[in-house]
Amino acid sequence: METPIESRYLIITGGVGGAKLALGLAHCLKPTEALFAVNTGDDFEHLGFAISPDLDTLIYTLADMNNKEVGWGRMDESWQFMDALEQLGGPTWFKLGDRDLALHTTRSRMLADGATLSEATAHICNSFGISHRVVPMSDDPVRTTVHTNDGELSFQHYFVRDRCQPQVTGFEFKGIEAAVPQPEILTCLENSRGVIICPSNPFVSVDPLLNLPGMRHALSQSPAPVVAVSPIVGGTAIKGPTAKMMRELNIPVTAEQVAHHYRGVIDGFILDEQDVSLHETLDVTTYVAQTVMVTLQDRVELGRTVLEFINSLKSKT
Amino acid sequence: METPIESRYLIITGGVGGAKLALGLAHCLKPTEALFAVNTGDDFEHLGFAISPDLDTLIYTLADMNNKEVGWGRMDESWQFMDALEQLGGPTWFKLGDRDLALHTTRSRMLADGATLSEATAHICNSFGISHRVVPMSDDPVRTTVHTNDGELSFQHYFVRDRCQPQVTGFEFKGIEAAVPQPEILTCLENSRGVIICPSNPFVSVDPLLNLPGMRHALSQSPAPVVAVSPIVGGTAIKGPTAKMMRELNIPVTAEQVAHHYRGVIDGFILDEQDVSLHETLDVTTYVAQTVMVTLQDRVELGRTVLEFINSLKSKT
Repeated sequence: METPIESRYLIITGGVGGAKLALGLAHCLKPTEALFAVNTGDDFEHLGFAISPDLDTLIYTLADMNNKEVGWGRMDESWQFMDALEQLGGPTWFKLGDRDLALHTTRSRMLADGATLSEATAHICNSFGISHRVVPMSDDPVRTTVHTNDGELSFQHYFVRDRCQPQVTGFEFKGIEAAVPQPEILTCLENSRGVIICPSNPFVSVDPLLNLPGMRHALSQSPAPVVAVSPIVGGTAIKGPTAKMMRELNIPVTAEQVAHHYRGVIDGFILDEQDVSLHETLDVTTYVAQTVMVTLQDRVELGRTVLEFINSLKSKT
Repeated sequence: METPIESRYLIITGGVGGAKLALGLAHCLKPTEALFAVNTGDDFEHLGFAISPDLDTLIYTLADMNNKEVGWGRMDESWQFMDALEQLGGPTWFKLGDRDLALHTTRSRMLADGATLSEATAHICNSFGISHRVVPMSDDPVRTTVHTNDGELSFQHYFVRDRCQPQVTGFEFKGIEAAVPQPEILTCLENSRGVIICPSNPFVSVDPLLNLPGMRHALSQSPAPVVAVSPIVGGTAIKGPTAKMMRELNIPVTAEQVAHHYRGVIDGFILDEQDVSLHETLDVTTYVAQTVMVTLQDRVELGRTVLEFINSLKSKT
């Protein structure tokens, strides 16, 4: 007999920026209290491997195996494979560490053998001793494409190969019409204690999940308050190309615009102390906190703050 | 305009044992004078990679990149991938080094993109600066299966995973009926200066090539003398399970039996000095040489000896 799953928090996250708060929340919540739903729009196939960058970042972060110096990939990594691949004329723009490669090989093999991405993710999490539940936003492929002045680019080509240099004109989530939200996410929402949108990129890390068929409806039907933490602080992005994208899309680079972006989805918004002046201007319940996370303590404290804020919001039903 | 290919020696080899003489011959012959045809019956798919152990051994040997301490794999190898794979519960019986993995990835990717194994092999050889021509025995899959008292085993399961412990009752080359000999091998034979069967395992390294449809006929029609070097010396095998297999198949473990095995194919046979007593008993032209190759000099000298012997044999036509 399985233990019935209690009412959980749903934590929506992308890669590095979001994983910081996700880690803090994992320190605040028991494994039975949280479900981490991760963007897979960044996923791609490379050299025959099925690579899920955001899932990997969260997994390495929760396992305390992430490389804290460079901010991506696995700690204690070596690069013999890449070195030898270069000698063979292979592509070197996407760095695959020797140890990281074992994860991609394991996932690729499981998918080829018919497992779902959720099953592969669960196996990897178990192997690394992660007790919290981590799921992809969908088991179906969704591929974020970036429309730019240089033409259409797959997300990793834009993000890694071209270092976000091309000017963005829009986004497209290929395959999303046919993608089904990961079933546990929908089940969680039916009886959730709260939904947290981590400070990830709204356009490419959170929108793929929000735009899955039925997801906005499920969020609106859920009794759980939905809270987002602004990834924009003091007019810039803590991590990644969010601010650059907003400028190129002619959106003012403010936390306010992030709140507008999530209009209809969120019931509460967390601003950084640097943006306290916006507090009165937003048309959503707002909380001001120290959101810049440098230390683990910062992550845990913001996690606690977010949970306190969400619990202070009235249940929607 | 391509330079017309001159009359070449065809060198038939398996893995480690045969690659020693192949290296010696590569030192004696210009790139335009040799074609190396390699057993692919040992090939297998593992963790999603297309692995060709005998091709890899020859390639690393010719590139002077082979690991001379352990006798297989690549030199200056590291094992971070295997270590991480073990943590993920992956199979560890077949050791894939971090640098070696770049070769398997490159080949697998090329095959998945529609290249032939010959094309992938040529790309890898070029990348490693190998100027001699190396080809698989066929671009079609042939999979050696070992029948044993423990049942039917794929070759790598028998050879690596089970360390040749199961008792052999026979061999089967799955897919061989539909496999076409690599075209350059047949072209080479039409106008060859000689064929050398390296001291590889007759049953599992040489027979797959000899048993390809049309191959024995092509060898018999070729003007080139065919010479084999005995892998059995003094009643035992220098390398690998040849002697153990012969015992289990109730074949006396002698060089004479190897010559019998190649009856109808060879025109000359090279015995080791330790087996000089067999010189008069064989029904094929025989030459006695020092065939145990320890140093590079040993390899080159045996190569020279084999070429002198083959040139001393009358052309068949």
